[in-house]
Amino acid sequence: MEAYLDNSATTRCYEEAADIVRHTMLTDFGNPSSMHNKGVEAEVYVKKSAEKIASILRVKPKEIFFTSGGTESNNWALFGTALANRRKGKRIVTTEIEHSAIAAPLEMMEGLGYEIVKVPVDREGIVDMEALKAAVTEDTLLVSVMMVNNEIGAVEPVAEIGAWIKANRPNTYFHVDAIQAFGKFRILPKRMKIDMLSVSGHKIHGPKGVGFLYVDEKVRIHPMVYGGGQQNGMRSGTDNVPGIAGLGVAAERIYRDLDAGVEHMYRLKERLYEGLQDIPNLKFHGPADLRKGAPQILNVSFIGIRSEVLLHTLEDRGIYVSSGSACSSHKRAGSATMQATHASAQEAESSVRFSFSELTTEEEIDYAVQVIHEVAPMLRKYTRR
Amino acid sequence: MEAYLDNSATTRCYEEAADIVRHTMLTDFGNPSSMHNKGVEAEVYVKKSAEKIASILRVKPKEIFFTSGGTESNNWALFGTALANRRKGKRIVTTEIEHSAIAAPLEMMEGLGYEIVKVPVDREGIVDMEALKAAVTEDTLLVSVMMVNNEIGAVEPVAEIGAWIKANRPNTYFHVDAIQAFGKFRILPKRMKIDMLSVSGHKIHGPKGVGFLYVDEKVRIHPMVYGGGQQNGMRSGTDNVPGIAGLGVAAERIYRDLDAGVEHMYRLKERLYEGLQDIPNLKFHGPADLRKGAPQILNVSFIGIRSEVLLHTLEDRGIYVSSGSACSSHKRAGSATMQATHASAQEAESSVRFSFSELTTEEEIDYAVQVIHEVAPMLRKYTRR
Repeated sequence: MEAYLDNSATTRCYEEAADIVRHTMLTDFGNPSSMHNKGVEAEVYVKKSAEKIASILRVKPKEIFFTSGGTESNNWALFGTALANRRKGKRIVTTEIEHSAIAAPLEMMEGLGYEIVKVPVDREGIVDMEALKAAVTEDTLLVSVMMVNNEIGAVEPVAEIGAWIKANRPNTYFHVDAIQAFGKFRILPKRMKIDMLSVSGHKIHGPKGVGFLYVDEKVRIHPMVYGGGQQNGMRSGTDNVPGIAGLGVAAERIYRDLDAGVEHMYRLKERLYEGLQDIPNLKFHGPADLRKGAPQILNVSFIGIRSEVLLHTLEDRGIYVSSGSACSSHKRAGSATMQATHASAQEAESSVRFSFSELTTEEEIDYAVQVIHEVAPMLRKYTRR
Repeated sequence: MEAYLDNSATTRCYEEAADIVRHTMLTDFGNPSSMHNKGVEAEVYVKKSAEKIASILRVKPKEIFFTSGGTESNNWALFGTALANRRKGKRIVTTEIEHSAIAAPLEMMEGLGYEIVKVPVDREGIVDMEALKAAVTEDTLLVSVMMVNNEIGAVEPVAEIGAWIKANRPNTYFHVDAIQAFGKFRILPKRMKIDMLSVSGHKIHGPKGVGFLYVDEKVRIHPMVYGGGQQNGMRSGTDNVPGIAGLGVAAERIYRDLDAGVEHMYRLKERLYEGLQDIPNLKFHGPADLRKGAPQILNVSFIGIRSEVLLHTLEDRGIYVSSGSACSSHKRAGSATMQATHASAQEAESSVRFSFSELTTEEEIDYAVQVIHEVAPMLRKYTRR
């Protein structure tokens, strides 16, 4: 038996998304920039995807710009607004628990003279609103806050942040990394006063290598990739038609039955939580009220068992989980999220992330629970020696 | 009948490349950054592709960095070396006939204070070596020259340029845009003294949305996309495993029988050239010796017929060609290549690019020749009124 519980690292592609990818590679394979039918045909896939996504977010299709994925979307939001608004100030406010696709480009910008302010979060990973308000000065160029933390599933009050920024700092842009949130929450940028929103395809059963950045038409932003002027001049390079078409199909499908999918994931999360209860010495991370956290993530420390040891033991039994964030290749020892939520070193080094999707089954959860019950006492004994 | 003669815009994906894309989306769909088997499995695809490509170029696998395509590769080579070598000078030498994926980022850099020098070409599109040598001063940071021009198929003497730079300007980097050359020429960066080389997947029957930049290990270059540290820290973002795997398969296949494929394309080019001979008022662009130009491109002006008019007339008969470069979405009126090769306005506005691949058949060429013979006199009559 196998249990793939690492869906926040990546998801299996929907068959129908894979089908449209194949079709646009072999049959409607034209270049949307070509002036003839084959190009026009290909362009329709791109337009349709933009329309589908725009309708989900209730924004305009021309506000959707396809990128090579969530990381590029995040980098572009930061670099692109900085480049286009050089007179607006060099202060950027973010949180202590952002994904490396925000933290790393900001670190790079710090080296170029930008002032990066990281707002703390509480023990559940929720951003400190008062600290954020104090940090966002009049001359702040941009605020960037993730909607769902990728490690512990904390859900940030982005609508509240957006409302406050628009009311009090009308010159400050608000960017939201929604890579773990899209496909799990209804996100309405206009209502939530979000100026830019990053999304990745492969977290929602779409293809890898594709994502988008929503950019409100009022935002001043420069491109990050220059060339043939595709994507209305904002993102050059031949449109990745198969990827974009697959992303559109995946987004449409996941939002068609969002509530059912989300309810399914919350039940899996609760089932796993309940199933682990009688194992001693656990520490659950993220919101204590499971329904206040994201539906797809349960992060728990098996204190006394190093997360890598548990990960590989489970792997031998066909159970796939993650230690911390699997989105960074050669993870440095410390997780910023664990530190920021005041997890002890012992907790941090024993934390395991289980992450679900709508394709995850109860059987997978039950199997994981059963195996963990078998191996945890043994691993703890071993560790104690 | 259909004749797809726009292969320099994009090619149909090989079935075997599409197969591996599908397999890595649905079966081996893991994230290479994950520490468990599913991640390791996925990572193998990335490693194998790097090895295949490295073996074709006779470089080290760790010198291959996967990107979202040729445009990103080009942008990165320029921005990345500029950022990493800020003390080396701000002068960059290029040619008058580069693709917009080089010309546009350089224009942007000019706005940031870089000095961009464009070396002229002759009437066949071949770079003026003496002018290039004069332009590349001691403090020149980078020289960027395309290997094959995308509009007229001129083949630049990159080995000669590389040798001269290494012998005379050892501190200057040499970048080659090989997007139209890879899969048609044997390219050996070490022997040709090329420091960086850009390649795109979808021009060689691989997937769209993927490409690579070869970077000699001695080159100092900064990333353009920051985050989880994938690609040895040089290109963050979850690896596009399906795209990368498909690119590897396509590269391997196209180089397995390179000579036969190239010979096939030269014969198609000659067949088309011969077939058009008795149409009056033609002007062929690029090297007069067809075998000195690239095998896949024949550019010809049907003087007196606007290229868009011919393009759409042919399209109605199922023949797909390009007017100028189809890689730029909303093409400005003038083609830099046409201007640089001293084509008259009349020639430039009537130029059509036919481009082939190893999948193109003689029947397609013959059909195109036949249809052009039918429609050209009629279109000329119409134009004269």
